[in-house]
Amino acid sequence: MAQPWILDYDPANCAVAATVSIIGEKWTFLVLREAFSGVRRFADIQRRTQAPRQVLSDRLSRLVHEGLLRRVPYQEAGQRARHEYRLTEKGLALYPIMVSLMHWGDQYAPGLGGPPLELAHRDCGAPVRLHLECDAGHELDSAREVTSQPGPGARRIA
Amino acid sequence: MAQPWILDYDPANCAVAATVSIIGEKWTFLVLREAFSGVRRFADIQRRTQAPRQVLSDRLSRLVHEGLLRRVPYQEAGQRARHEYRLTEKGLALYPIMVSLMHWGDQYAPGLGGPPLELAHRDCGAPVRLHLECDAGHELDSAREVTSQPGPGARRIA
Repeated sequence: MAQPWILDYDPANCAVAATVSIIGEKWTFLVLREAFSGVRRFADIQRRTQAPRQVLSDRLSRLVHEGLLRRVPYQEAGQRARHEYRLTEKGLALYPIMVSLMHWGDQYAPGLGGPPLELAHRDCGAPVRLHLECDAGHELDSAREVTSQPGPGARRIA
Repeated sequence: MAQPWILDYDPANCAVAATVSIIGEKWTFLVLREAFSGVRRFADIQRRTQAPRQVLSDRLSRLVHEGLLRRVPYQEAGQRARHEYRLTEKGLALYPIMVSLMHWGDQYAPGLGGPPLELAHRDCGAPVRLHLECDAGHELDSAREVTSQPGPGARRIA
């Protein structure tokens, strides 16, 4: 078989690697899962993810530093002021990643009884899915229907 | 603000966590990136990911064990028999995850010069994207247009 063209290009400039360097870690995915479910408080996130306290603190700080979460103060009666964590626009843009992780798990690593979570369109109530489509309007069923080619940022290996 | 309903449910049964427990690790994502680019040989994957040899060997074995990659023997003239690694159907089904990681990186962590890789429909050549749509045919622009609800596998906390 012919060698893939990509072997002639530098892998250092890779968008997957760039994303993974920010969020590609087990606890970070679980923190983001909570954020997308509206779970915003440290104690709740810790209880649900079971992340060690210092690890969770580190992951939250990183996500704030990267601009994916923002800290918003709140105070309950008789308690000291605390912060909750909300997704920014940049964080909300991670949604397709979370949905694709969830759908793959539902299909290939299912728990007892079926999917624990269902997504619906807020306006009409219909189930929500990710579709792979081309700009000519064709729906693609598999990675096999996609070809990749060097983009404007690709760098040939000298 | 009202507490999210999900706090009444057990997070142990989570499809995101199930997926992340299999692939949610930096080197694994890079190995999968290579697999989707047609890079199948240990030495090529190692050179491009810069993964330490033993780490790469571990990650590949895990992906084979989980049924995402399969080993296929090959032999070049004058060399000993080796294996290359190819995606299975279960592995190919990870494609939306890889595309969503790539598109987020292209948009929010861009390298110099723009996207290093472009995806096109094999049949018509048009650019390929992921779309979030409901089964009634509405395209959704944001996570804000989605509501989540307990699915059949959801378990209430006693």
